Amino acid sequence: MSFLAQIEECNRWAAGDFIPFIVEGEQLGMARREFAEALDSLSDLGEALLLDQFALQWVSAPSGFAARTEAMQRLCDELIAGGLISHRHGEQYPVTPSRREDARFLIDRACAPYFGVRAFGQHLNGFVRRPDGLWMWIARRAADRRVYPNRLDNMVAGGLPWGISLAENVRKECAEEAGMPEHLADRAVPVGAITYCRASKRGLKPDVMYCYDLELPADFEPQCQDGEVAGFELMPIDRVAEIVDNTDAFKLNCNLVIIDFLVRHGVLTPEHPDYLEIVQRLRSLA
Amino acid sequence: MSFLAQIEECNRWAAGDFIPFIVEGEQLGMARREFAEALDSLSDLGEALLLDQFALQWVSAPSGFAARTEAMQRLCDELIAGGLISHRHGEQYPVTPSRREDARFLIDRACAPYFGVRAFGQHLNGFVRRPDGLWMWIARRAADRRVYPNRLDNMVAGGLPWGISLAENVRKECAEEAGMPEHLADRAVPVGAITYCRASKRGLKPDVMYCYDLELPADFEPQCQDGEVAGFELMPIDRVAEIVDNTDAFKLNCNLVIIDFLVRHGVLTPEHPDYLEIVQRLRSLA
Repeated sequence: MSFLAQIEECNRWAAGDFIPFIVEGEQLGMARREFAEALDSLSDLGEALLLDQFALQWVSAPSGFAARTEAMQRLCDELIAGGLISHRHGEQYPVTPSRREDARFLIDRACAPYFGVRAFGQHLNGFVRRPDGLWMWIARRAADRRVYPNRLDNMVAGGLPWGISLAENVRKECAEEAGMPEHLADRAVPVGAITYCRASKRGLKPDVMYCYDLELPADFEPQCQDGEVAGFELMPIDRVAEIVDNTDAFKLNCNLVIIDFLVRHGVLTPEHPDYLEIVQRLRSLA
Repeated sequence: MSFLAQIEECNRWAAGDFIPFIVEGEQLGMARREFAEALDSLSDLGEALLLDQFALQWVSAPSGFAARTEAMQRLCDELIAGGLISHRHGEQYPVTPSRREDARFLIDRACAPYFGVRAFGQHLNGFVRRPDGLWMWIARRAADRRVYPNRLDNMVAGGLPWGISLAENVRKECAEEAGMPEHLADRAVPVGAITYCRASKRGLKPDVMYCYDLELPADFEPQCQDGEVAGFELMPIDRVAEIVDNTDAFKLNCNLVIIDFLVRHGVLTPEHPDYLEIVQRLRSLA
């Protein structure tokens, strides 16, 4: 691996495998051709989702946010019953052409990748400034996590469901994942966003990760409250950089959050041969 | 204006106005169609620069870095004599398909835009952390500057000539433009790079600005040594943000350096309606 390879790995998708998912003339995502074809072959859904040569169109989408959200929920239930979608996550995500606030309707988090809709999350770098440099709190994911069990993770990270503000969700995740009091979580500084787009077996994940830096006092020690994290370790930043650069120990997208941190704090410097490409490609336009 | 409008203004160019500038099968820039046609009509240059339907090709380019640099120098002299290029700046810039280190030959800084070659610069945010928040040192350009006289500027900023390291050039610019001692300049932290691409009367400027943050002690006051700056003012960051958001008081590309600072320091937050577009478009891929 290398820093750039981590970014490339997060942006692995072949345009030819997907077709636009369109609702009322507006592209809201991308669906795998096989998924679109399978939908088309389910006769009772034939009217709901129309596959033409160029796109998967949700032709029967009712008007209005609430009605459309309900209809998508019924549709996903049928697709789960028909074995085309694996499961329901239980959290509602916005379906939007661009910003979270411009959501056209909601979709279950686990169903979102099938339609390749943009998903939003928040990742927080918890770090400590010491005389000998920066140290970063790294989490190890619990062994029973559905995705990336046992892998390394940012101190706090989570999806951003509909109906909660960014600041509230940071507070909530900081409390659940690291046992952090509100007054400390509120010191988290928003420092940018990373965008990437990756194919998965289910479909496509064009993701937005809002990034936060939180400088922690030397005596704070994170304690997971919700069982999602097996433990935490405070590491010198050079060791974190080395793990990202040379291994796949981290949950894939966390590498990008750390690379961005390394750039912003002058740990990864312009002398690195891939510097410009790294900086540019942390924000894919897909 | 708005933050996003500043970024758009820096990325104003129409692909149809330019054709690739190609040397030995490799694209190294873009030239204005009119410039390419005028070159073509100068009979004594007819052999040197070949304009075909799709590109401006430097067909007579000799082999080797030094020979090519010399030939380009002679060519530019002829173009200046012929009135096609306005003047010579006196600093050599690398001509490269990507990185500074991969330079194929050198070209005078003032001649670079005619061939639309990527130019590199460094911009430094000098700031002070106070109990009431961040304050930023802002420079006002001298009245006799060739470009953007009297406009506001980053505390230290300059082009990056060939043959000097990034760290050395920061030191040099900090000394010349702000009278800063070396031990202070060496605290500058590289924090990323901004890329943009803008058409000018001469041609095209696909620019890379390496960005630095330098936290300054409260008692340091910048003093310009080389006459390029009329004066400095320490401003609260919200006032700096307001100037960037609502006026064109800054030299155009400095706005982007400040917007990037505002994002990284949590002054411009994800709640801003243009946040994602701002973050993505600070690094154009052109």
